[in-house]
Amino acid sequence: MPNTFGHIFRVTTFGESHGGAVGVVVDGCPPRLRLSESDIQPDLDRRRPGQSHIVTQRKETDVVQILSGVFQGRTIGTPIAMIVQNEDARPESYSEVKTKFRPSHADFTYLAKYGIRNWQGGGRASARETVGRVAAAAIARKWLLEKFGIEVVAYVKRVHKIEAGKIPPHVNLKQVEASIIRCPDPTTARRMIALVERIRREGNSVGGVVECVARRVPPGLGDPVFDKLEADLAKALMSLPASKGFEIGSGFAGACLKGSEHNDRFEIRGGRIRTATNRSGGIQGGISNGEDIILRVAFKPTATLMQKQQTVTTRRRAAILQPKGRHDPCVLPRAVPMVESMVLLVLADHALRQKTIR
Amino acid sequence: MPNTFGHIFRVTTFGESHGGAVGVVVDGCPPRLRLSESDIQPDLDRRRPGQSHIVTQRKETDVVQILSGVFQGRTIGTPIAMIVQNEDARPESYSEVKTKFRPSHADFTYLAKYGIRNWQGGGRASARETVGRVAAAAIARKWLLEKFGIEVVAYVKRVHKIEAGKIPPHVNLKQVEASIIRCPDPTTARRMIALVERIRREGNSVGGVVECVARRVPPGLGDPVFDKLEADLAKALMSLPASKGFEIGSGFAGACLKGSEHNDRFEIRGGRIRTATNRSGGIQGGISNGEDIILRVAFKPTATLMQKQQTVTTRRRAAILQPKGRHDPCVLPRAVPMVESMVLLVLADHALRQKTIR
Amino acid sequence: MPNTFGHIFRVTTFGESHGGAVGVVVDGCPPRLRLSESDIQPDLDRRRPGQSHIVTQRKETDVVQILSGVFQGRTIGTPIAMIVQNEDARPESYSEVKTKFRPSHADFTYLAKYGIRNWQGGGRASARETVGRVAAAAIARKWLLEKFGIEVVAYVKRVHKIEAGKIPPHVNLKQVEASIIRCPDPTTARRMIALVERIRREGNSVGGVVECVARRVPPGLGDPVFDKLEADLAKALMSLPASKGFEIGSGFAGACLKGSEHNDRFEIRGGRIRTATNRSGGIQGGISNGEDIILRVAFKPTATLMQKQQTVTTRRRAAILQPKGRHDPCVLPRAVPMVESMVLLVLADHALRQKTIR
Amino acid sequence: MPNTFGHIFRVTTFGESHGGAVGVVVDGCPPRLRLSESDIQPDLDRRRPGQSHIVTQRKETDVVQILSGVFQGRTIGTPIAMIVQNEDARPESYSEVKTKFRPSHADFTYLAKYGIRNWQGGGRASARETVGRVAAAAIARKWLLEKFGIEVVAYVKRVHKIEAGKIPPHVNLKQVEASIIRCPDPTTARRMIALVERIRREGNSVGGVVECVARRVPPGLGDPVFDKLEADLAKALMSLPASKGFEIGSGFAGACLKGSEHNDRFEIRGGRIRTATNRSGGIQGGISNGEDIILRVAFKPTATLMQKQQTVTTRRRAAILQPKGRHDPCVLPRAVPMVESMVLLVLADHALRQKTIR
Repeated sequence: MPNTFGHIFRVTTFGESHGGAVGVVVDGCPPRLRLSESDIQPDLDRRRPGQSHIVTQRKETDVVQILSGVFQGRTIGTPIAMIVQNEDARPESYSEVKTKFRPSHADFTYLAKYGIRNWQGGGRASARETVGRVAAAAIARKWLLEKFGIEVVAYVKRVHKIEAGKIPPHVNLKQVEASIIRCPDPTTARRMIALVERIRREGNSVGGVVECVARRVPPGLGDPVFDKLEADLAKALMSLPASKGFEIGSGFAGACLKGSEHNDRFEIRGGRIRTATNRSGGIQGGISNGEDIILRVAFKPTATLMQKQQTVTTRRRAAILQPKGRHDPCVLPRAVPMVESMVLLVLADHALRQKTIR
Repeated sequence: MPNTFGHIFRVTTFGESHGGAVGVVVDGCPPRLRLSESDIQPDLDRRRPGQSHIVTQRKETDVVQILSGVFQGRTIGTPIAMIVQNEDARPESYSEVKTKFRPSHADFTYLAKYGIRNWQGGGRASARETVGRVAAAAIARKWLLEKFGIEVVAYVKRVHKIEAGKIPPHVNLKQVEASIIRCPDPTTARRMIALVERIRREGNSVGGVVECVARRVPPGLGDPVFDKLEADLAKALMSLPASKGFEIGSGFAGACLKGSEHNDRFEIRGGRIRTATNRSGGIQGGISNGEDIILRVAFKPTATLMQKQQTVTTRRRAAILQPKGRHDPCVLPRAVPMVESMVLLVLADHALRQKTIR
Repeated sequence: MPNTFGHIFRVTTFGESHGGAVGVVVDGCPPRLRLSESDIQPDLDRRRPGQSHIVTQRKETDVVQILSGVFQGRTIGTPIAMIVQNEDARPESYSEVKTKFRPSHADFTYLAKYGIRNWQGGGRASARETVGRVAAAAIARKWLLEKFGIEVVAYVKRVHKIEAGKIPPHVNLKQVEASIIRCPDPTTARRMIALVERIRREGNSVGGVVECVARRVPPGLGDPVFDKLEADLAKALMSLPASKGFEIGSGFAGACLKGSEHNDRFEIRGGRIRTATNRSGGIQGGISNGEDIILRVAFKPTATLMQKQQTVTTRRRAAILQPKGRHDPCVLPRAVPMVESMVLLVLADHALRQKTIR
Repeated sequence: MPNTFGHIFRVTTFGESHGGAVGVVVDGCPPRLRLSESDIQPDLDRRRPGQSHIVTQRKETDVVQILSGVFQGRTIGTPIAMIVQNEDARPESYSEVKTKFRPSHADFTYLAKYGIRNWQGGGRASARETVGRVAAAAIARKWLLEKFGIEVVAYVKRVHKIEAGKIPPHVNLKQVEASIIRCPDPTTARRMIALVERIRREGNSVGGVVECVARRVPPGLGDPVFDKLEADLAKALMSLPASKGFEIGSGFAGACLKGSEHNDRFEIRGGRIRTATNRSGGIQGGISNGEDIILRVAFKPTATLMQKQQTVTTRRRAAILQPKGRHDPCVLPRAVPMVESMVLLVLADHALRQKTIR
């Protein structure tokens, strides 16, 4: 179960951060969708390390190869397997980690769980695992756009304590990609980049908040009770490495409003039943209501630092972890396509589920 | 899928808010656990409407009956079905709702999804559905305590803008139950109750934040990648009615820290590998590390108000929704056992999953 | 998992053979289907013990009650829970079984699995568990008939060594119900009944074969690879108590044909693509081809005998099991609605799955 | 769902018969198992085409590559992805099939299901898909042997009308592999081979029966109700291409016995509770009882013939299908490792499930 997501549009990822390959099998993709590697690669390029000087400098070209499920340029209803080779191995960078637990990494917990671990990098806990998610979501993106016109756009809303003002709901990919920090407000973007450059020089790291909007989601997606749309979104986004919080619509701030202030009253607008406000974030009772779905995800600062840190060894001795190799001063720019990907996977699955009902 | 939660400890709830019964089938409960209705009823009583003057006054005794899966006072490994009859029907209270969509309720979205709806109350979107969850979780609670010594305690951390200070991690059930608002800080509790009494008189409602701590969770629970422990907790808690946000450990505030401030360094304490701080909230890389699991859930104010509200009808006409019947000025006290229940269901499932690995 | 069947039309049964109730939760039934207890009861009556003198004489009225999921006579898309009370308890009949393993019953294996068992009857291994399956399948039957015109008819093909000749594929329920043995060939039926009467007097039991035909199944149901339609049918039917074999189309006899004799050549008939013969049994490559689906299930003689039997005790001593109570000389007449039910559950699930593809 | 098998030991296969690669992802394999390609390759070599003159002559080396989940020669609890490149493509062999439906192949039903199909070979309906199953099962085989001493051995019991006598239950791999037909009775094997050679020259094909025994399965595997061990075995085996029937223990012949003849009485033997006979085939009430599990699978003759066949085109015109390329006169020798593989996958999954109970 743990490596599979979705019930109808089912995604199974595999691969560790080092050695061999990472990849994904997508089962349940509708047939007759035009598809080739060129539909997948752009999203992988947005996720790739080394794309700018403010993210990790690991060297990976991340070229995707489709192994199955596509014939003469169209999906045929069978599982679509995709792989990306791991290139930048550097096992020597990790020799110290064989015996020392890195603070706030998964070294200790993987050993506790499995009684063994792959000390050569982050294994499955590495952000490298998200290659498979992003590749799968690129297919979901294409299908959702063609079938419903659904668009999913994420962007950096906050870095450390620098927060952008309200982003207009019609923000587009081009505006997001205009800055390497992926904040569509140019003034804030510049301040964020300056901060990350400074943090990087300190060998430190910062976290922040990514916001995501899904537009033109038809009413009726999501299931009552356990598989509420916001519940599946929460799971999807809290499964991303380094995420610490999730909120939808009014979120934590909504807990400071009264009912009379929070309720979204209905009205007729453009001939359709709409809500006058959108504190619900596009979901009511677990089911989409046709308004924009809007959510936010908090990411902690990445745990690898270019600073000495106290820790313990597998033999329970105190030790100092030396700074070594590379670090990622700010995970947020690369988190943007990851957030979009998880939202896309949830929407594709629920769109297909809804076909069993209507 | 939508009405089932868990992979090994599997819980399927059924029942609408009015008519018939609500209940649950628990499949996968370990055999040989002592169990009777008296293990279930106390948690149901904490969830019950009408337990104090600051919650909804619906009249339900919520007496649970075990139909199967228990023989001579012990579980036998077969599905445990439990039901609670619905008593307080009042269909006449809902006649207006046949044709008018209640703002921020699920009336509109259920109709959009299914093309039909049960207008007699909230149906499956009602908090009444959580009867089954709480009954199932009472079994999980007993098993987790006997098997691992795990304790799960939740409490009200904030009501509207009134927030309790830091609650000690060893807070216990008695301290929580000492006030009807279920905030273990007596001074803050009094202020919260006074606020809810005033809000109630206004016919309005307020939301807030529930915090929950799980103690003595062994290291190794949770799965990497999609079924990370925090991901499953997020889904579980965002599946509760009226929840709008979830955070674990440092949460959204953690996004304002630097890596050097956020990392939990390891140390040897009491002969075990421990972390000096717990910003991770007891989970690293999706797997429990043996520290307290600590999380928070934001609840919006409930949508039913004793005030007139603008809305539209099923025939797309503007209309006024009249105040009628009862309302719940503050869902938080009853949310406390619901939050505990969802945490217990996640922990029971992952504790059983871990048995397949070690 | 073990008590749930299906992915979209999901059925979870509960209840032991004695005490409490037996029942089922159906999740995923399409909304807007007219439904009441009167749609369920007839199939339960065909499954009921005591319906004729050649089956077990246990006294159960098996009156079904719908607890949820239906509003104003229609399904609303939420889980449909149904229960039937157990009436004929007789715990005293089973006192001997506390300490002696009944041959070819599940007493020994349940104890091996769970370390505890309900000695009061067959528990979940009893045919009584099928009450929930038959109730759920009655809903599937109604939906499949209304939506596609699908009809599923089973009948007794063989009792011990008495086998009916070829049954015409258009055989109907009335012809099957014309005899208490449920063999639509009247002459053979009389011989079968005479045999069962004699076997009953001997305190012995006989098995046989049930054949089932599903008509008007549209092409395209079933999934390639693991969830082939015949694979899911095999699982469904081999999950019935006492079943020992399954075959589809040509079955075991087909293994004695050459390819040139076995292949079903295509032709145009009635304007549609049809096969000239139907050795495939309506399924090719795991997917229905629009021809009649035809399958057979072998049932062993029931294990309870009115004869002394050698066995051992839970303390590993040799012992004699005394004949006591009631026995079922021939499970086949009651197996007929059980077989139909399992076929209906598989077809309903795959019909809904197919909606995710086209 | 359709391309995944198992709940805990989960296997997802991918890949069409031509182009790209075939492969599998195994999720849920226990950690710390020694594993390398050399554990997988021998079973793949037994499944490989072209291994003798009596099977299909397609040219594939079927060299397996492990992409993930193994570190320093041991499994680490993460998904194990394995691929095998497709080599023998020959798209030109299939040009005729673009427009003509091959009798008793899946051409027509895939088109009916998906509205599109890969005409270049059998796609997912090809036996080539079983590469992934066999590779996954080789891991299951190793784990089951090390953990429980379980051995699974299959062999050809019947070819067309030539049937071997009773095969001793302690038959071993070497005896099976002694003949290219994989029947451990040398005299019968010679007759079977002579028959297949003749059938091959005729351009025809024959089916038959494979029998399989699983030894040293501990009591307690299998779940009551829907996931009975024999039900999951039936599904597993009926999911193999060309299978038409399944039976366990006494099977169809058991339906001709009386209860007094069929019951397996218990006795103490070698200090353990055993059954004196094994008509149950090692399973009672869906749960293993510690006796040998014994089952049989009927395979129809393969559908590709070196003879002209009547059929219709996608445009509904009558047509003649010309013999072309290669055919498989007898699928049985290669079916032997496939049958073992499916039994191994079921046993591994249920062995892990049982760990959640005891």
